[in-house]
Amino acid sequence: MTQSQLTSLLGITHPIIQAPMAGASTPAMAAAASNAGALGSLGCAMMKADALRDLGNDLKSQTNRAINFNFFCHTDPSSSAEKGEAARAKLKTYYDEHDLGHVNEATPTHFPFSEEICNVMLELSPKVVSFHFGLPPSNLVEKLKDNGSVIMSSATTVAEAKWLQENGADAIIAQGFESGGHRGYFLEMEDACIGTMALVPQIVDAVTVPVIAAGGIADARGIKAAFTLGASGVQIGTAFLNCVEAGIPAIHKQELLASDGSNTRTTKVFSGRPARGIINRYMNEMRAEEENLPDFPIMNTLTGPLRKASSTAGSPDFVSLWSGQAVGLNRESTTEQLIQNWVNDAGL
Amino acid sequence: MTQSQLTSLLGITHPIIQAPMAGASTPAMAAAASNAGALGSLGCAMMKADALRDLGNDLKSQTNRAINFNFFCHTDPSSSAEKGEAARAKLKTYYDEHDLGHVNEATPTHFPFSEEICNVMLELSPKVVSFHFGLPPSNLVEKLKDNGSVIMSSATTVAEAKWLQENGADAIIAQGFESGGHRGYFLEMEDACIGTMALVPQIVDAVTVPVIAAGGIADARGIKAAFTLGASGVQIGTAFLNCVEAGIPAIHKQELLASDGSNTRTTKVFSGRPARGIINRYMNEMRAEEENLPDFPIMNTLTGPLRKASSTAGSPDFVSLWSGQAVGLNRESTTEQLIQNWVNDAGL
Repeated sequence: MTQSQLTSLLGITHPIIQAPMAGASTPAMAAAASNAGALGSLGCAMMKADALRDLGNDLKSQTNRAINFNFFCHTDPSSSAEKGEAARAKLKTYYDEHDLGHVNEATPTHFPFSEEICNVMLELSPKVVSFHFGLPPSNLVEKLKDNGSVIMSSATTVAEAKWLQENGADAIIAQGFESGGHRGYFLEMEDACIGTMALVPQIVDAVTVPVIAAGGIADARGIKAAFTLGASGVQIGTAFLNCVEAGIPAIHKQELLASDGSNTRTTKVFSGRPARGIINRYMNEMRAEEENLPDFPIMNTLTGPLRKASSTAGSPDFVSLWSGQAVGLNRESTTEQLIQNWVNDAGL
Repeated sequence: MTQSQLTSLLGITHPIIQAPMAGASTPAMAAAASNAGALGSLGCAMMKADALRDLGNDLKSQTNRAINFNFFCHTDPSSSAEKGEAARAKLKTYYDEHDLGHVNEATPTHFPFSEEICNVMLELSPKVVSFHFGLPPSNLVEKLKDNGSVIMSSATTVAEAKWLQENGADAIIAQGFESGGHRGYFLEMEDACIGTMALVPQIVDAVTVPVIAAGGIADARGIKAAFTLGASGVQIGTAFLNCVEAGIPAIHKQELLASDGSNTRTTKVFSGRPARGIINRYMNEMRAEEENLPDFPIMNTLTGPLRKASSTAGSPDFVSLWSGQAVGLNRESTTEQLIQNWVNDAGL
């Protein structure tokens, strides 16, 4: 598959996808990316239907180009009540340190892609709907495709890529271990932490749909290298986090600019699923609990008030400082300028 | 730095290094690689002076091209006697299963690069001497350089790359997390598991010496991608393990050919330091002990008889099945043919 086949499929000019990043990607960022000829994306993992509709209409008011909405397809949490209570007890000290009072109940407050959310997508009718942690039930995938949306999802192994192709994905994001934020694995191969350099050619050889490389790509060198490996496009996240449009706390932006790429690791302590972020006090202190936490997204609910309080206080200690491993290449910019630089430098 | 600057520095035709792999690289493999225009390497980590001299003369009898000898510069083990005894007790069951009798004593039997080994290198006078886990004492580095050898070592972070340049390395191997075998970190940043795609450009921007990309590279796509990222050359290991010259057990070769790249991880249970291999029974059963083992290379001494017995029995269960993450691209070949294919496919 060539880059032009992907840009044609997605209705974009340049084979670059601004990664959906729940909590960081904004309508302003997605619109700027799409207006610059890339695919702008909104991370909508934790949103309710009404808020999603409002956000989508906000984005559509700022661009008439192709846009992408991204959702999580996690399985319902199955962890024990004991794990939930143990985590609440552990977090109580941190809640007290921030005068946050009662620790949230250990019950799910956010849900995977549902019929109700699907209906909002049918209304908004974006060019692309993408998923993380697999795909939603096949009847929902079919509805989206019948409505004209292109379906994408992330694979962290060859087996996941084949599964996605067999289950309706029109393009596959090969998500290397370098990626910031949540790892998209869904076939119980948490240990297969495959880097982009190794993952992309092996997936390209195994599927016929276009493959989009993600993870560790942050400048024109990475973009061209991904194409050389056989990718039809790239999805880039962390590099956008120092753009003015990024909806992250100032302390997160500072930590990104200060990193040389060596101080990130994946952790379950924020959400219950492995995600890559800059190492901070909370990650270090909770490391021993890593395997005893309630499932995603219950842990996410439990840490919400802490993350917010820490960011309000301007402290990095309890903020989920999501970051990929190429963060040392980050520079302050606008979304438009960043994409234009890549297009120029890569000769796209 | 361009590829031609590296080939000129190393005295080779193609900017490809056959990775030194202690226990797997043989004089036949290194000679075939050098005779094909690449840099052939011998992994000599665990060798005594006399055996090293014999091996080196064997290699020199098969090629008059540039060759590379690789050594480990680990710090002396400092783990407690309790850890050693606990590991011996744990391994006793496995020793008994293989009728191996007394478990080896938990004392070092192999040592880092020393004056005695350095003197053998001064005699053999190879074009390149490379190191893993840092560099030897500066007086030994100076002796080797005064004798005309080029010095290389591995970096897994930007900080390690800068340290190596400051301490005399003439070229730096940027070793991505995808790599098979031992990770070369030495500045206590075990958590910085940076993938090749992210590591190479960040190191290229930080040093002035040539950077050689390693990890996840197994065909012409990977070679060209590495150059695009700014590397002056590539070091490739796993792809050579299915060559006829590779000195590994048949069961290891079979496991490599059966892998899709998803079943490797890093482990300390064979040697005491993290190294990437195909997951087997021993790795799984010992996982809980990972952080309680005696330091490298004591653990290596303890597992030696088990690894040998398992390989003799044709079982993968206790063999260190070293492998990188791009192993799904492995094919049976000869060293000469493999290199020739890459040269042709990458248009070198």
